Amino acid sequence: MTEGPDFTLENIAREGLIEPSGTEQAAHDGTGRVDLAFTVHSTGDAAPTQRGVRVPPGVTVFDSASWNGIAIDSTCGGHGTCHKCKVKVEGGSVPITRHDVRTFTSDQIAEGWRLACLVQATRDLAIEVPPLTTRPKAATVGVGRQVILRPALVKRYVELEEATLADQRTDLVRLTDAISDLELNADLHVLRRLSTVLRQSDFKVTAVIIDEDLIDVEPGDTTGERYAIAFDLGTTTVVATLLDVGTGTPVAVASMLNKQQPFGGDVITRISATMMDPDALGRLQEAAGATLAELAVQVCAEGGIDPAQVYEVAIAGNATMTALVLGIDPEPLGVAPFVMSTAQPPTVLASDVGLTLHPRARAVFFPALGAYVGGDIVAGMLATGMDRDKRTRLFIDVGTNCEIVLSDGDTILSTAAPAGPAFEGGAIRCGMRAADGAIEVIKLDATSEPGVTLGVIGDVEPRGLCGSGLVDAVAELVKVKLLDSSGRFVPEVDALDIAPVLAHRLTKIGEERVFILHQPTPDSPPDECVYLSQRDVRELQFAKAAISTGWTLLLEQLELEHLDIQQVLLAGSFGSYLSPASAVRIGLVPQLPVLRIVAAGNVAGEGAKMALLSLRERAGATALIEEVAYVELSDRPDFNDKFVEQLSF
Amino acid sequence: MTEGPDFTLENIAREGLIEPSGTEQAAHDGTGRVDLAFTVHSTGDAAPTQRGVRVPPGVTVFDSASWNGIAIDSTCGGHGTCHKCKVKVEGGSVPITRHDVRTFTSDQIAEGWRLACLVQATRDLAIEVPPLTTRPKAATVGVGRQVILRPALVKRYVELEEATLADQRTDLVRLTDAISDLELNADLHVLRRLSTVLRQSDFKVTAVIIDEDLIDVEPGDTTGERYAIAFDLGTTTVVATLLDVGTGTPVAVASMLNKQQPFGGDVITRISATMMDPDALGRLQEAAGATLAELAVQVCAEGGIDPAQVYEVAIAGNATMTALVLGIDPEPLGVAPFVMSTAQPPTVLASDVGLTLHPRARAVFFPALGAYVGGDIVAGMLATGMDRDKRTRLFIDVGTNCEIVLSDGDTILSTAAPAGPAFEGGAIRCGMRAADGAIEVIKLDATSEPGVTLGVIGDVEPRGLCGSGLVDAVAELVKVKLLDSSGRFVPEVDALDIAPVLAHRLTKIGEERVFILHQPTPDSPPDECVYLSQRDVRELQFAKAAISTGWTLLLEQLELEHLDIQQVLLAGSFGSYLSPASAVRIGLVPQLPVLRIVAAGNVAGEGAKMALLSLRERAGATALIEEVAYVELSDRPDFNDKFVEQLSF
Repeated sequence: MTEGPDFTLENIAREGLIEPSGTEQAAHDGTGRVDLAFTVHSTGDAAPTQRGVRVPPGVTVFDSASWNGIAIDSTCGGHGTCHKCKVKVEGGSVPITRHDVRTFTSDQIAEGWRLACLVQATRDLAIEVPPLTTRPKAATVGVGRQVILRPALVKRYVELEEATLADQRTDLVRLTDAISDLELNADLHVLRRLSTVLRQSDFKVTAVIIDEDLIDVEPGDTTGERYAIAFDLGTTTVVATLLDVGTGTPVAVASMLNKQQPFGGDVITRISATMMDPDALGRLQEAAGATLAELAVQVCAEGGIDPAQVYEVAIAGNATMTALVLGIDPEPLGVAPFVMSTAQPPTVLASDVGLTLHPRARAVFFPALGAYVGGDIVAGMLATGMDRDKRTRLFIDVGTNCEIVLSDGDTILSTAAPAGPAFEGGAIRCGMRAADGAIEVIKLDATSEPGVTLGVIGDVEPRGLCGSGLVDAVAELVKVKLLDSSGRFVPEVDALDIAPVLAHRLTKIGEERVFILHQPTPDSPPDECVYLSQRDVRELQFAKAAISTGWTLLLEQLELEHLDIQQVLLAGSFGSYLSPASAVRIGLVPQLPVLRIVAAGNVAGEGAKMALLSLRERAGATALIEEVAYVELSDRPDFNDKFVEQLSF
Repeated sequence: MTEGPDFTLENIAREGLIEPSGTEQAAHDGTGRVDLAFTVHSTGDAAPTQRGVRVPPGVTVFDSASWNGIAIDSTCGGHGTCHKCKVKVEGGSVPITRHDVRTFTSDQIAEGWRLACLVQATRDLAIEVPPLTTRPKAATVGVGRQVILRPALVKRYVELEEATLADQRTDLVRLTDAISDLELNADLHVLRRLSTVLRQSDFKVTAVIIDEDLIDVEPGDTTGERYAIAFDLGTTTVVATLLDVGTGTPVAVASMLNKQQPFGGDVITRISATMMDPDALGRLQEAAGATLAELAVQVCAEGGIDPAQVYEVAIAGNATMTALVLGIDPEPLGVAPFVMSTAQPPTVLASDVGLTLHPRARAVFFPALGAYVGGDIVAGMLATGMDRDKRTRLFIDVGTNCEIVLSDGDTILSTAAPAGPAFEGGAIRCGMRAADGAIEVIKLDATSEPGVTLGVIGDVEPRGLCGSGLVDAVAELVKVKLLDSSGRFVPEVDALDIAPVLAHRLTKIGEERVFILHQPTPDSPPDECVYLSQRDVRELQFAKAAISTGWTLLLEQLELEHLDIQQVLLAGSFGSYLSPASAVRIGLVPQLPVLRIVAAGNVAGEGAKMALLSLRERAGATALIEEVAYVELSDRPDFNDKFVEQLSF
């Protein structure tokens, strides 16, 4: 096993899972993605639920499940030691590890039983998840991080002695004396209920505590109901995970587009909206709150949970999203010198951000490192253990604004690079979001038919090109040499020699040269096709140059070379679906063996879950404000030179 | 001077002011009260204001002014050392002290100039108060206590550097860096305003801080406007004092009846109301809030202060009033074993108790020692320095519920005695509140006409008897021996011998014997007169027995004798107007030289002011919860025996 720090376990480090002692490593080239069909059984008579999950190849089945809110038994956190994460892989010609041999009978292994944390998803799989047998005291969240459950939300059931003239302790003291290991503060809300609830329930009550604040007393024993919601509040997409913080189990997951979309696709257009229209801030705040509220209703309904049993939410969002949902004017974030109101938003009532949960439910936010390295990135750093891992690691969240974090195991630097809208499908002629009809995977073959192989979301007629498809398209065109290293399409006269099977696809729309990726019918003119234009290549080129300039400058600052990087984490919804091989090929990430490049999934959401499950992790996030240096690129005199250097493929 | 503890100065200790070195002591017998007519001059062109004040004889002019919100220059706190509290006493045959001689020219002394802290009000006086010359850094509040101003409410004016790319500190850090001596927390409200206010006012702002919470940023320099309101939230009467916490100066005072009156005159009837009618708690809460709100509007209008410049209020009320204004069910306070929800209510927003002041204004409450020794008494203990004074002192707040505190300078005990409604005029045939027409002072002469001399509030036709008049009536009847020590009117046959001038006033209404105090016309039948009945005497007898049983048991517990008590403080609106001599004569207070019995004024209100002016004093109030033992009388097996012993006069 790789030597990790002793207090965290990394199971996504694929190198770490290639055990010298006989574990087979499934071959994969780091491109494309795989579909996993989970059948989740639960205790009792409930029918099993079906869940389809799409992940980059090489991710473990355990992580694939965990990222998507599917609970699998585990106490070791996916380290291959607890032997609890048993799943049955259907049609399973998946490798057998020595841990499987120790855990299962040969009949079971023949039936497909495996430990989920050791099965890498290198092809489409159908997986049966048995009912949970344990209520884990630790949970695996983030990128395979094992979190000991010590949630801020605590419930204590107590049976109190009734008062007498000889024992006139106040109701509050009577209660807190019974919970003497905690120092409790009571707010007005709970004092208004306390004496009534105590007397109506014969002094048998459950104290609801967040951190050290007594937020409610509930009649009888309600310790079984402890819920919280983790929100990844993205500019585009918002994801909610309903968590049982007593067990660390995700109960339900839902996502939807941020209702702020009508104000613009990225943070700059939303900030601009507030500068043009004095009412826009209020409306953006409301839209963000409505998004959170709708998702909360959805996950509670799906989980069969009364929203009043949700006592805490954690919200991971970039600085602009965080400001907007709190009703804080974002204008200073949008104009130089890019200043935040505060790096650490205060904890507020969930109702302050539009949520109708328990009336005193809290909303906690992640701190931000800068106006463009926000709470979502800090959450992601938490989820990936950027602050705890001793390896040299590069974290890249690819998007309109691209956040980059580099750690040499000691010093941590962060920066933001303005990548522009290319990766979100904006400013790309045939660009679209990663939705049905989007080409997300492209393979080109210069010499044998069919020449172009497309992976399309939803397996429907291709309608456009999403970010990962764009990167694949450019990477493959560079590979087959139809794009030169300066990013120019080769002259048509040379194309036939270079790539005989593909050359006919290189044509023009007006004056602009394009490469046809998909022609709906043989008669379709180029402008009715899905194509990549010369300008699209330039857009991507500028984006990748901005990003690579970012990590190049950070590497220089830590006096590191590319090859010193032991792991590159690609984060965010886009990063997760980017082909590592293509990302390397176009220079979006450093030139490294593809196995060192890891899709980290929705790390912001995972960080939010960790903050709900562990006060220690939450404190770790706050500590990052002090621990991580923020490098402002726009202030660097050498930025432009580096940027030009990085333009070529 | 009396040796007091070194950190507090006691100037109401009249013994302390009788300096051996030549200060004359005005003779007074401790009965009746005096009228002081203040003419208060202010700086600038404003016309002087007239204020009439009525105090027990012997109180200093300085205290009389201070208790009534009239500011007189002082830095020493009425100790006779700063020589600043200069007033001009009109028609002033008042004694001259050696301090006066040092301070004034002989012409000035001849004109009536005196130091206010050394002039005892032993007769009606007219007093000119010159404009304030200093903004004191300490203020005299409470019973002559000198409070160094260190209010929770702090304002800081700062001029900040604007942000640059090289200095991207957040707005909050930029502000807090400039106020580095305080650790500031910012809430959502202030973060919503911060960036806008900073940029609109060229980064020149005033931070508004309560304790360590940044509650607002205001454009420009507003450090001059720092206001708070001290509330004495009485069951009957509510008093509000608007304070400039920067100077400690009271700006305006107002009082009104508690709007909860329609629910009943005392705490028990109000608690009962909540037990009968589920809506009553809400309505009582609203009524209390409306009372505070109306007074706040009144004092702000009178002081010419924008209510949004009031940032904090302190509320001193008994446990029931505190529960009701906070919307906490008071039922457990009203039934054995008399349990509070909490001894220390949390700090809430002023808007939570119905006040419309600064939107983030805070309301702080005093802790309570027991269900019947509430925050008003703790405030009173603060104001009288019960916790700091090394003398043996007895504090009595006389009312329907009578609170008693005894300190031997080391141990402090408290208890509550159920005195019943006698002192509030309830259950007394001709009883009434201390309002116009109430007989408040009575002198009887058994042998010379007119026999009965009455002091009547408002100098109008007597309509009834208020609490102090009741005590005077019984005390005087005991003195002239028309009441025997068992509290029975002597037989009519004996009356003529005992008190020839008064005997004809001893008559009957129905079967009940009465003593006529005032006959409107010579033909008025007894039942149209103001009289004291045998049953009234019994009511008072029970009340005083309850009270004296209380302090007797406390004295026993500390193994003290009556004469060990160096000072008796009579507190509350009733206590302040009770004649010390009469109180001694009926045994309401221990048999002591009358000079040891001091009317302490509205100590609850004074304590509330202290809490607003000094965090140290506020912390002192909280510490009292731990320092003061609460003795439950209803739990004492010897209570009934003691009570019977105490019935006689």
